[in-house]
Amino acid sequence: MNNFIFENATKVYFGKGCVKEYLACLSSHYGQTVLLAYGGGSIKKNGVYDEVMCSLKKAGKNVIEFSGIMANPTYAKVLEGAKLARENKVDLILGVGGGSVMDCCKAISMAAVYDGDIWADFWARQGIVDFEPLPLGVVVTVAGTGSEMNGGAVITNEDVKVKTGRDYPRCNPKFALMDPAYTYSVPKQQMVSGGFDILSHIMETYFSEPNEENVSDDISEALMRGVIRDLRAAIENPEDYIARSNLMWESTMGENRIIKLGKRMDFECHQMEHQLGAYLDCNHGAGLAVLHPVYYRHIYREGLPKFRKFAVNVWGISSEGKTEEELARAGVEALADFIREIGLPVTLRELGADESTDLKAIADSCNLAPGSYKKMTHEEILKIFQECY
Amino acid sequence: MNNFIFENATKVYFGKGCVKEYLACLSSHYGQTVLLAYGGGSIKKNGVYDEVMCSLKKAGKNVIEFSGIMANPTYAKVLEGAKLARENKVDLILGVGGGSVMDCCKAISMAAVYDGDIWADFWARQGIVDFEPLPLGVVVTVAGTGSEMNGGAVITNEDVKVKTGRDYPRCNPKFALMDPAYTYSVPKQQMVSGGFDILSHIMETYFSEPNEENVSDDISEALMRGVIRDLRAAIENPEDYIARSNLMWESTMGENRIIKLGKRMDFECHQMEHQLGAYLDCNHGAGLAVLHPVYYRHIYREGLPKFRKFAVNVWGISSEGKTEEELARAGVEALADFIREIGLPVTLRELGADESTDLKAIADSCNLAPGSYKKMTHEEILKIFQECY
Repeated sequence: MNNFIFENATKVYFGKGCVKEYLACLSSHYGQTVLLAYGGGSIKKNGVYDEVMCSLKKAGKNVIEFSGIMANPTYAKVLEGAKLARENKVDLILGVGGGSVMDCCKAISMAAVYDGDIWADFWARQGIVDFEPLPLGVVVTVAGTGSEMNGGAVITNEDVKVKTGRDYPRCNPKFALMDPAYTYSVPKQQMVSGGFDILSHIMETYFSEPNEENVSDDISEALMRGVIRDLRAAIENPEDYIARSNLMWESTMGENRIIKLGKRMDFECHQMEHQLGAYLDCNHGAGLAVLHPVYYRHIYREGLPKFRKFAVNVWGISSEGKTEEELARAGVEALADFIREIGLPVTLRELGADESTDLKAIADSCNLAPGSYKKMTHEEILKIFQECY
Repeated sequence: MNNFIFENATKVYFGKGCVKEYLACLSSHYGQTVLLAYGGGSIKKNGVYDEVMCSLKKAGKNVIEFSGIMANPTYAKVLEGAKLARENKVDLILGVGGGSVMDCCKAISMAAVYDGDIWADFWARQGIVDFEPLPLGVVVTVAGTGSEMNGGAVITNEDVKVKTGRDYPRCNPKFALMDPAYTYSVPKQQMVSGGFDILSHIMETYFSEPNEENVSDDISEALMRGVIRDLRAAIENPEDYIARSNLMWESTMGENRIIKLGKRMDFECHQMEHQLGAYLDCNHGAGLAVLHPVYYRHIYREGLPKFRKFAVNVWGISSEGKTEEELARAGVEALADFIREIGLPVTLRELGADESTDLKAIADSCNLAPGSYKKMTHEEILKIFQECY
């Protein structure tokens, strides 16, 4: 294990009925005014909104609503929420939704108290900031980003066409309420793209240096096998509580820093997808599904031992009669087969790209950290996009 | 996943050189007086004491030394440390050592501020306590108990011959400094018994309800395979940093609550070993090594599917041509073989028992929680002890 520092301050309340059981009590630890933030309103249809409101009313809260947070939340939306929070002297932000809502809320929790241009100083410049954001609690309704137990917020600045994220530990939610039954009503396509986002977080961490035997990779392999198993089960039966609860916790475990300890993450595929998202406004998990196999076909020869392990330990492929390269490639193709099996898109056209899409501009906008196996040039990124098209 | 609540407040600084790099700064967040607690003095021989003292002096601390903490720390020793902490108005307890030192320090951190009989109110009665212990930091020198990232303290009360433990989250160390190179000088026998303690924590958690596919068990299997691999490597080369650092982190992961989420632990084998320890004052890991295979031979028929998984997923035993029962038993025997391979004792006589040892009294003193697979009677516990003799 390489050197690391680990902390995680979020307190998690996990399981059926947790919102009803704990939200009123948890919110009572904060002041009078709660900013209730959510997305397009699905929480009003599935009963989550009512359950949350009932608890907040029980705790005697003054609730300010902030709705309409979009997939790929924009910096403009962050500023709108921050203004509302300041004007109403909000004591607690409560985000109810998936990754987009949680990320937007973290950004609001910073922007609401920061004196200055938080995009320029934090996201764009990646400079050091040192201040306490507004307290944030989250009610998770989708398994995917694992945003509930870290300080990361991925935000899209439409003016400069940049989608980027950063983990600021003080942005960790104070509490996260996670009821797996809330995910029953997530439509299949969103469920599998969220599921692929989980798998992708773990794969991108796994395929990062160092490659020696280490605990983080051991845990990652276990989690990947679990995600594959549980995603299949949840597709088979959307109300399979065991599968849904496993997926929800795998999502958190993928992004609560545990599997990243001692690793140097490059997250090249995520960075490419972020720029696809900034230009095409496509679904994040779907974008990752299109990119991953093509990207891995470009790098696996540079990381044969690790890709071989991936094939054997994650996909259970027998090594008998195969060269190391054949085995490594078989793992990548097993991943590609799985993506087709669960019904995710495999081309950029399915994500909304057409002849007018300037793939070169998107490739040139990618500002990738050096990869663990291979240095990606803008030419090779463009080639990957073209092969995905 | 069953419902759970998770939090873990300890901040971990892991890796070569971490004490020199962080201890002075970390201790500066607390008041003037530090209680420096340690064991029999090995830290004076291997240089750890000097490194710690140098950092504390650099931070301008007034250091009160409290040494001689024994394996199986006694309640009398806890009271002695608590008296010293009170008399000197200690601001921070710094425990330097393995599990015994850390557990003793947690108990001191409680006893030093508690008004009343903390043994009676906390360990014996398992009642609710609600107060803030003295702040505690730890420097870990042995991989084994994983005590550095939880609030658990196992204490032996010699007067009543009871060794018992409990996890009080506010007893979590504020910080844990973990330098794997510090473990190089741990003698082989202590290293393997610490290693087996790690494995045992994970096995006891794994062999607990529920038995459905769940993330905690997936991670446990990965950690068990890792401990087996890394223990073999560290025996082969005691200065194998990769193996030592993996073992150190596996130790923490076994006991930082992550693999226990959604599980109902029975820890029957630990409870039996605790009473062996209370009577024989034997090494904890060695006691567990003697008990585990015999205990598992008593219960595996009641948990065939789980023991079958253990055989296949942890020990890599092929299922071909074996009945479920044969496969399950093969896993238990693989564990027994591993215990012999790494040179741990296999009989109670090797732990100091002789004809004068009253095995019935020890068995009768075991107060076991209901097991996940089988209810253990005092008669069966005695039978296990006799088979171990």
